[in-house]
Amino acid sequence: MARTSRDIRSANRLTVVQQVVAAGTTSRQRLAVDTGLSLGTVATLVAELTDLGLLTEAGQEDSGGGRPRGLVTADPHGGLLVGVDVAETYVHVDLFDTTLTRLAGAEEALRPLERRPHQVVRHIVSGIDTVLAGTGARVLGVGVSVPGQVDREGGVSVFAPNWNWHDVPLRDLLADHLPLPLHLDNPLRAAVLAELWAGAARGRDDVAVINLGTGVGAGLAFGGILYRGSSNSAGEWGHTTLVLDGRLCRCGSRGCVEAYVGAPGIMQTLRDLAPTSPLLHPEDQTATLDALAAGLAADDPTAAKVVAETARYLGVAVADLVNLLNPEVVVLSSWVADRLGDRLRDEVRAVVAQHALRRPLVATGIVRSPVAGNPVSLGAATLALEGFLTQGR
Amino acid sequence: MARTSRDIRSANRLTVVQQVVAAGTTSRQRLAVDTGLSLGTVATLVAELTDLGLLTEAGQEDSGGGRPRGLVTADPHGGLLVGVDVAETYVHVDLFDTTLTRLAGAEEALRPLERRPHQVVRHIVSGIDTVLAGTGARVLGVGVSVPGQVDREGGVSVFAPNWNWHDVPLRDLLADHLPLPLHLDNPLRAAVLAELWAGAARGRDDVAVINLGTGVGAGLAFGGILYRGSSNSAGEWGHTTLVLDGRLCRCGSRGCVEAYVGAPGIMQTLRDLAPTSPLLHPEDQTATLDALAAGLAADDPTAAKVVAETARYLGVAVADLVNLLNPEVVVLSSWVADRLGDRLRDEVRAVVAQHALRRPLVATGIVRSPVAGNPVSLGAATLALEGFLTQGR
Ligand SMILES: [Zn+2]
Ligand SMILES: [Zn+2]
Repeated sequence: MARTSRDIRSANRLTVVQQVVAAGTTSRQRLAVDTGLSLGTVATLVAELTDLGLLTEAGQEDSGGGRPRGLVTADPHGGLLVGVDVAETYVHVDLFDTTLTRLAGAEEALRPLERRPHQVVRHIVSGIDTVLAGTGARVLGVGVSVPGQVDREGGVSVFAPNWNWHDVPLRDLLADHLPLPLHLDNPLRAAVLAELWAGAARGRDDVAVINLGTGVGAGLAFGGILYRGSSNSAGEWGHTTLVLDGRLCRCGSRGCVEAYVGAPGIMQTLRDLAPTSPLLHPEDQTATLDALAAGLAADDPTAAKVVAETARYLGVAVADLVNLLNPEVVVLSSWVADRLGDRLRDEVRAVVAQHALRRPLVATGIVRSPVAGNPVSLGAATLALEGFLTQGR
Repeated sequence: MARTSRDIRSANRLTVVQQVVAAGTTSRQRLAVDTGLSLGTVATLVAELTDLGLLTEAGQEDSGGGRPRGLVTADPHGGLLVGVDVAETYVHVDLFDTTLTRLAGAEEALRPLERRPHQVVRHIVSGIDTVLAGTGARVLGVGVSVPGQVDREGGVSVFAPNWNWHDVPLRDLLADHLPLPLHLDNPLRAAVLAELWAGAARGRDDVAVINLGTGVGAGLAFGGILYRGSSNSAGEWGHTTLVLDGRLCRCGSRGCVEAYVGAPGIMQTLRDLAPTSPLLHPEDQTATLDALAAGLAADDPTAAKVVAETARYLGVAVADLVNLLNPEVVVLSSWVADRLGDRLRDEVRAVVAQHALRRPLVATGIVRSPVAGNPVSLGAATLALEGFLTQGR
């Protein structure tokens, strides 16, 4: 479909704010070069965004003989953004200003049996109350990332190992307690937005952000814009087949990528290679991954073997993404990728180099996420910012 | 990146022409509804496209009491488009008018040893001379699809079983003989354009067109626009891994989708299941696929088994696309899909239903290409039309 002039203005607004946030301080002239928009369009958008309180003048720069150029920067007083990362064991809430600087945070644990929607909602609301306590500024929006496949308009269908939510009307449940613009999505989308706004995908067009945690997925952006698919369920790369008739996956299929490179899959690989290894903490994914990371650092041969085998699985699956999508950058994100660090990245790069076709291979960088803190809550906050900018609220 | 006003005008031009070609005859009012553009924008674009000779007035329709509405249609006299499908055994050339109606065609066989660039170029030029003989109208452009990964700007690197081209400057070689606007790409892109303009992807946003032939790939469109990836090599789905450490593939990896569902892969499956089957024509892919198709029609159990096994491989691989990309439609195209017809489609649908996640599954249709004739030469001609419309020539 064609984009309407309204869509285009929204998209261009986003682009300008994104560029300013990334650059810190910049000029209209540089914005025009960086975005491909005309100087006139940039000037109009900057004026609109200044009226909205998102941008502000930041002095002038010498233009080397010509007229001095006015500088603009993101206005930290433009309003507040809340980002919420609902995970399987916690609800993490962060408060940001409109420069995406983190102002406050709160985390509430979800106990093993706290799985019912109203219990989770209570923790979300309580976390938001904590970070907003004492703040007076306007809240532009709240972004909430929940695991699973999310229907943005209303309900949310969750697909998480220990949850059993189906068509939970999360938007309505939250709206009862939160009279604020609310934006729901899942961690794959949030992670891509975090990389586009503040991470390894800044200024990039075609991007895959791999979430490597208990669950596994690939958030996608094409042409610099988040890709959702036709029913907002794109990115379920964790449930693409790596080994036909392989390990049973929690989705019911066999041989899925997630069954090999999600935390439980890595634990299975460890169990297969060394069933009695002291690295294995049978009921504790985090402890096992910590032990593997410590083992890597201490040259433990079992840890090295498990990571090499994991890199082999992950590398083949990343090569699949490279061959299919020819992205500019593949970003390794989330806690399993963080734990196994540069070692996993380097071994994955080597496997991808063996399996990907030459032309897409040379066009793709494979990097770790440079986002500090929680990329999902940051991404959820940018979801709220994007909602504010595109809906004109 | 933001889209410049020039990009946007180009994209909107394309959309309007696409809609008119698809609709046959339509009104500015209906175009506005179908494209999401304002009536004023549509009127301006229709006027521009009429000046270019692509659209023409087509009378009026009663608007039910209101002022009668002017109708527009694609002008068959707007110029000529040439589409060339260079395959491993032939060069096929079709001539179209600007309504994408086929006016003439020519096919030249490539003998087994005619693999050198100047030999292939000679056949391309000779085929084009044949279809253009005696025509007087202006040729808006020539689109050429060549197998492999194509650098659109100049060279072309081919990745085909029996060819050994590397960085062949095909554009220059052709330009010496053809003083016409020239647009190069590969069959994956051509097939997607054929479906977007005249096939199962008309009006659809997120699309995968599976080329099932000797080679295998998936042409992609997102938001109704052809997706190329960062170096025009997206779509190499044939070289994503289905069976870790599986069959050796001609790309050097193991277990690629193509090694199971390309014509040579299907022959291998037949060989594995029934090494002495009379269906097998060891040196002839086409004859073997014809024999399998005839076998299916005659309830031959070996043919049924080979197709079921092929559908299992293909279905799992299509489910991967559904889970990763959440497309609106997956189109089965090219000669192997044509030979195995509805039977293959139906069995693939059943396998996909077992392997895809529910939410993307219900959003996706799996269909056979409805494009009559050669979709690749048609797509190559639309590549030339898109080039003409976006480059303003
Ligand atoms: Zn799975
Ligand atoms: Zn291959």
